[in-house]
Amino acid sequence: MPELDLPAQLVVSSDGTLTGNNGIYSKHLGDMRGVYRDSAAYDAAVVAQGADALVYRVESQDHGPHSGALTIGTSRLLPGRYGEEFAVTRGHLHEVSDRAELYYCLSGRGVMLLDTIDGRSEAVELTPGSAVNVPGEWVHRSVNVGDEPFVTLFTYATDAGQDYQLIADAGGMRRIVVTDGAGGWTLRENADHVGYRKA
Amino acid sequence: MPELDLPAQLVVSSDGTLTGNNGIYSKHLGDMRGVYRDSAAYDAAVVAQGADALVYRVESQDHGPHSGALTIGTSRLLPGRYGEEFAVTRGHLHEVSDRAELYYCLSGRGVMLLDTIDGRSEAVELTPGSAVNVPGEWVHRSVNVGDEPFVTLFTYATDAGQDYQLIADAGGMRRIVVTDGAGGWTLRENADHVGYRKA
Repeated sequence: MPELDLPAQLVVSSDGTLTGNNGIYSKHLGDMRGVYRDSAAYDAAVVAQGADALVYRVESQDHGPHSGALTIGTSRLLPGRYGEEFAVTRGHLHEVSDRAELYYCLSGRGVMLLDTIDGRSEAVELTPGSAVNVPGEWVHRSVNVGDEPFVTLFTYATDAGQDYQLIADAGGMRRIVVTDGAGGWTLRENADHVGYRKA
Repeated sequence: MPELDLPAQLVVSSDGTLTGNNGIYSKHLGDMRGVYRDSAAYDAAVVAQGADALVYRVESQDHGPHSGALTIGTSRLLPGRYGEEFAVTRGHLHEVSDRAELYYCLSGRGVMLLDTIDGRSEAVELTPGSAVNVPGEWVHRSVNVGDEPFVTLFTYATDAGQDYQLIADAGGMRRIVVTDGAGGWTLRENADHVGYRKA
């Protein structure tokens, strides 16, 4: 039997604070170069807000990469627009690509944008109390389509890992989430997308 | 690559309704024979409420037992007392014993009671917004220590399975959760517990 892990108590706030976390990272505007399709709008945002403006923050708790272990965390993605495109996380495919992930919306209004490497795409809107069971084999990214922070509780197998480079190498995901000009969101094909490399 | 699963959208209500579920089961008072230590109090409850009185209800969604898949669900455990002991679920150890599980409290007030088969015990209180990362190798059971339904959102690897018989064969978990006589709860050793069989 591996070393015994102890049950971890967590307190999850709707603003994304995770009391009991043992890991935090933040992504700032300067980290997001190349992510948004409208590079002029991105450059203007860096000038206006500064490269150290927060884009999103992730807090998480895990017991280490034991077989069968779960990582639990919160993601707080601030509202933003870069041209017509809404603020996004970098997105990833799990390195162990069959690993699923739960996202449960705690506050705000967002979209989970999903692609398979061989050509399927989906988009699932998330509002407080709604959730998505992201199966293995789906590249996925959070998008904030509202005016408030989009906050989710997530869980995945700790051994899953994340391939963040896959989307960058593909010129972005297959579609982007843009304003519909009426307070809502719509999907647009991403002309820069060149297809995903096979794992 | 296995057959592709599609992202599943779920709506999670704080009363435990899971829109998008593909599985529901309920446990009624008549199903709980032998679970509570005060058998006279249990028998009296069956007479008073009927064997078909609801004790708890579980709704869940999964994509089938594919490697890496997650089952997502809700558990709604009604308040109750059988003598001094609070209402519980049957509890389980995962058949694949290293599999962890997340419980996130949506409403009510409960305790996650945990044992290892070789002698450790823990108890974690859960109120709305709090959560517990239950590692592998821990037998666990939900207890409602409040006056309202105790509702949780849970997630575990679909291939984990549940051994529900282990606790029954041991004469119950090592400890029971009882009223402290002042509106709260406390732990008491379970004199009927004979130790867990090894897997």
